[in-house]
Amino acid sequence: MGGMRQAISQVPRARANPYNARITLEPWMSTTRYSVAQLAERFALEFRGDGTRVIDGVGTLAGAGPSQLSFLSNSKYAGQLAATHAGVVVLNREAAENCPTAALIARDPYVAYAHIAALFERLPAATPGAHPSAVIAPSARVSPSASVGPHCVIEEGAVVEEGAVLGSHCIIGQDCVVGAQSRLVARVTLVKRVTLGKRVLVHPGAVIGSDGFGLAFDRDHWVKLPQLGGVRIGDDCEIGANTTIDCGALEDTVLEEDVRLDNQIQIAHNVYIGAHTAMAGCAAVAGSAKIGRYCMIGGNAGVLGHLEVADRVTITAKSLVTHSIREAGEYSSGVPLQENRQWRRNAARFKHLDEYARRLSALEKDKK
Amino acid sequence: MGGMRQAISQVPRARANPYNARITLEPWMSTTRYSVAQLAERFALEFRGDGTRVIDGVGTLAGAGPSQLSFLSNSKYAGQLAATHAGVVVLNREAAENCPTAALIARDPYVAYAHIAALFERLPAATPGAHPSAVIAPSARVSPSASVGPHCVIEEGAVVEEGAVLGSHCIIGQDCVVGAQSRLVARVTLVKRVTLGKRVLVHPGAVIGSDGFGLAFDRDHWVKLPQLGGVRIGDDCEIGANTTIDCGALEDTVLEEDVRLDNQIQIAHNVYIGAHTAMAGCAAVAGSAKIGRYCMIGGNAGVLGHLEVADRVTITAKSLVTHSIREAGEYSSGVPLQENRQWRRNAARFKHLDEYARRLSALEKDKK
Amino acid sequence: MGGMRQAISQVPRARANPYNARITLEPWMSTTRYSVAQLAERFALEFRGDGTRVIDGVGTLAGAGPSQLSFLSNSKYAGQLAATHAGVVVLNREAAENCPTAALIARDPYVAYAHIAALFERLPAATPGAHPSAVIAPSARVSPSASVGPHCVIEEGAVVEEGAVLGSHCIIGQDCVVGAQSRLVARVTLVKRVTLGKRVLVHPGAVIGSDGFGLAFDRDHWVKLPQLGGVRIGDDCEIGANTTIDCGALEDTVLEEDVRLDNQIQIAHNVYIGAHTAMAGCAAVAGSAKIGRYCMIGGNAGVLGHLEVADRVTITAKSLVTHSIREAGEYSSGVPLQENRQWRRNAARFKHLDEYARRLSALEKDKK
Repeated sequence: MGGMRQAISQVPRARANPYNARITLEPWMSTTRYSVAQLAERFALEFRGDGTRVIDGVGTLAGAGPSQLSFLSNSKYAGQLAATHAGVVVLNREAAENCPTAALIARDPYVAYAHIAALFERLPAATPGAHPSAVIAPSARVSPSASVGPHCVIEEGAVVEEGAVLGSHCIIGQDCVVGAQSRLVARVTLVKRVTLGKRVLVHPGAVIGSDGFGLAFDRDHWVKLPQLGGVRIGDDCEIGANTTIDCGALEDTVLEEDVRLDNQIQIAHNVYIGAHTAMAGCAAVAGSAKIGRYCMIGGNAGVLGHLEVADRVTITAKSLVTHSIREAGEYSSGVPLQENRQWRRNAARFKHLDEYARRLSALEKDKK
Repeated sequence: MGGMRQAISQVPRARANPYNARITLEPWMSTTRYSVAQLAERFALEFRGDGTRVIDGVGTLAGAGPSQLSFLSNSKYAGQLAATHAGVVVLNREAAENCPTAALIARDPYVAYAHIAALFERLPAATPGAHPSAVIAPSARVSPSASVGPHCVIEEGAVVEEGAVLGSHCIIGQDCVVGAQSRLVARVTLVKRVTLGKRVLVHPGAVIGSDGFGLAFDRDHWVKLPQLGGVRIGDDCEIGANTTIDCGALEDTVLEEDVRLDNQIQIAHNVYIGAHTAMAGCAAVAGSAKIGRYCMIGGNAGVLGHLEVADRVTITAKSLVTHSIREAGEYSSGVPLQENRQWRRNAARFKHLDEYARRLSALEKDKK
Repeated sequence: MGGMRQAISQVPRARANPYNARITLEPWMSTTRYSVAQLAERFALEFRGDGTRVIDGVGTLAGAGPSQLSFLSNSKYAGQLAATHAGVVVLNREAAENCPTAALIARDPYVAYAHIAALFERLPAATPGAHPSAVIAPSARVSPSASVGPHCVIEEGAVVEEGAVLGSHCIIGQDCVVGAQSRLVARVTLVKRVTLGKRVLVHPGAVIGSDGFGLAFDRDHWVKLPQLGGVRIGDDCEIGANTTIDCGALEDTVLEEDVRLDNQIQIAHNVYIGAHTAMAGCAAVAGSAKIGRYCMIGGNAGVLGHLEVADRVTITAKSLVTHSIREAGEYSSGVPLQENRQWRRNAARFKHLDEYARRLSALEKDKK
């Protein structure tokens, strides 16, 4: 759902009874509108061209119309600039030379666009108070300014802080804390001993605080290790749809601030993830691994348990980290995609790679 | 839950009050029965043997009894035909020569079996109307012939078309559309701006229309890119359990008609998937990738962002597509499974493959 | 949530009305306390040191305080023993020589710790009866000793046996059975024809009994194969968060007893998993594969369809099983992680591995 900024021109419709029988969420009723000059002032950008032009939305260079703002940050799309019908384009000073319409000049057009676009996001209004179908334990503390959607369940000892928004079907388990201004879009489960910082955004289907996978093998069967820790998630983190984060076995699983997790990521018990690290969809981190700050973990990449990964490490998609990484840099594993018949021939040879290396050495020795 | 066909002999039990306090779904109360001759006529198949035999279910060649229909489509199972106790077997003309029981002869026995078996599926009845525990926004439009299960939430501006079935705990977010005759089995979340075509089948835990993973790095922290597009899903698509499909950043994420997604698949923002493409469990497609028609993507295979994959491409399980594919065909990556000690030796050599290739070239050069 | 054992000293607070409007779950109100001597007697362990010391919790060697129990099972942590502040440590006879505090001596300290720690797990109390917001079909049978949480839905013909606990938002589909003392933590969906044995533990977001992915290709489009089987899960199994297990096409998908599945695992239709097999997060097993007993499947490993894997096979993380495995042992695939530029050079050479092998053979032939 994204940024928490609210446009000053957005006015939620007043309602006498925000939660009558069949109302859930109330959309913004007005449309956001800014002139190009207003945008320039608000975001401290220089503008060129018609500052009075009114902008009410955003679009791609190819798709935006005269009342929409677009951006150019990737030179790959520079060819589309000449033909754009956008009302205004965010771009850097050099590209602005060739801009056929109004321009907003930014050092980093992508970042500037991200800030501006948040103005035009139509977030569902979050009416303070709890929907009557929500089930809230007596010992739970819910801020009067928080919004609790239909069919939510808030268990004993849980805390929902000011301005937090729980969409439909969220479960806030025993002793969990939802920090101020956090937004659980819908159907999020905080199982137990989970603390979310401020402005945390969690997408549907995420499960945080489920049991870690801890087992001891007792002769002929498994014995479960109770998972007695919790999960601590820092301010400004984002957790994707159907992502799972297990509670720690004894101490907590931790995400520092501004960690960004895409969908279907699995974070095992006692993992520690440094601030500003981002992981793409389907990545997985095994128990007690410690990931540094400002790391980028590619889609479906994996990190084995008990390893350490330094700050500013990039792991490319589908790679498996099998040893600790001590130095910043980019790391990969895997083999290239090939047409299947060619691939089969090469893959079959892989099974003999050690033998080939020995034979190569033997030939070299013979030669001498 | 499968096909939407209803057997003419299935008669739901009449009920005065379909949604009294504790009723959710009403099962079919009668049993489906067809004679072999009726099946032959209904599906335009030739039959051999006793056409009056009554069939009330389906089973495997090894497991079916005299009132059950089985099929033989894979020659691997031909040896089981002689000993089958099935009442009738669907098979091709050649195999029918050796069939010890009644036979239904089909050009493609697997397809014919799929159609026939749908007759015997006992789908939960879908009583029109909404369960009293459902929460429906005033501006939502729900067809009187649609069925809305317990604890569903339908938000402002959403539309549920005729004959659509929402099982328990579905959330239909703002401005989403559920097309006619679509079935959301249970606990499906359409977050926002999602349009499902007709006869779309969505399994539990699926999340459609969650935010795409779009971030801009601003010096020392992430800024979220608002995800302002939607998701459009064509007619006859099927979406597996716990699969996630993100909304587009500016334009829509699109699945054309008859796309079939298995469980736990991740489809990122602005992906475009052509008609009749099927993906097996745990596959993942990164942002803005464009997959052709009639593709088959294997289990846990991945496609990197912004790539294009032509029509009729097959990707084998766990492969990673790292470049665009322009030609139909089968593509793979990965190395073969080996006993661990052997594998370790070969894998260690992989780290020096470039060096070996150079040494090989040097030897060849020396020889000349 | 873990072990089902209850400490004798735990006394749930009596309540007149266990489910008044806003109560969901009632926490244990007393604290669990045992003396070291009591623990020794209860678990048949020898103790050394002060048997009267009172223990009320568990912790790591580094983190535990004087009223907490810790353990030493991995010699890697032996260095922490001397400095521990734990009240008592579970360890083996040899390590006990150097224990600076009370000691509980166990043949397998990890297993002994697992049993002891379960005493100190604070499970939410499970009040018998159904929360008023639960929707239960008239033909469902729910044991009076079972606990049904807020917003659960129990469909026609379903059975919930004695002492079973359904947390909030569980859906028990038509004809499903939840065995005695099983615990569905929250938001678990049993779709249809699912039978759970006794003491099965299922974590949030799991979907069991969803349709298998069965399709027949009919000239130019897909035809769905109805999925008419069920799922049978044995006693003492554990199913992780957001894990999916499909129902069988004709016969059942089966997990024998004490199978342990971590989070986000995908089990396709008609898979059969032998007793005591454990799988780590994000593993996936394709249709009709048969996995033996006492296997260990690593994180994100995959098993292709229709294969057989013998008893006591270990598959390392991210490996793909592409052929049946007939012998116990450890198996792997994949290539090692490297710094990206080095990796690129080696990976590019992989595309020519077959050619290199031929050139190597040619050189050897020349030499003779």
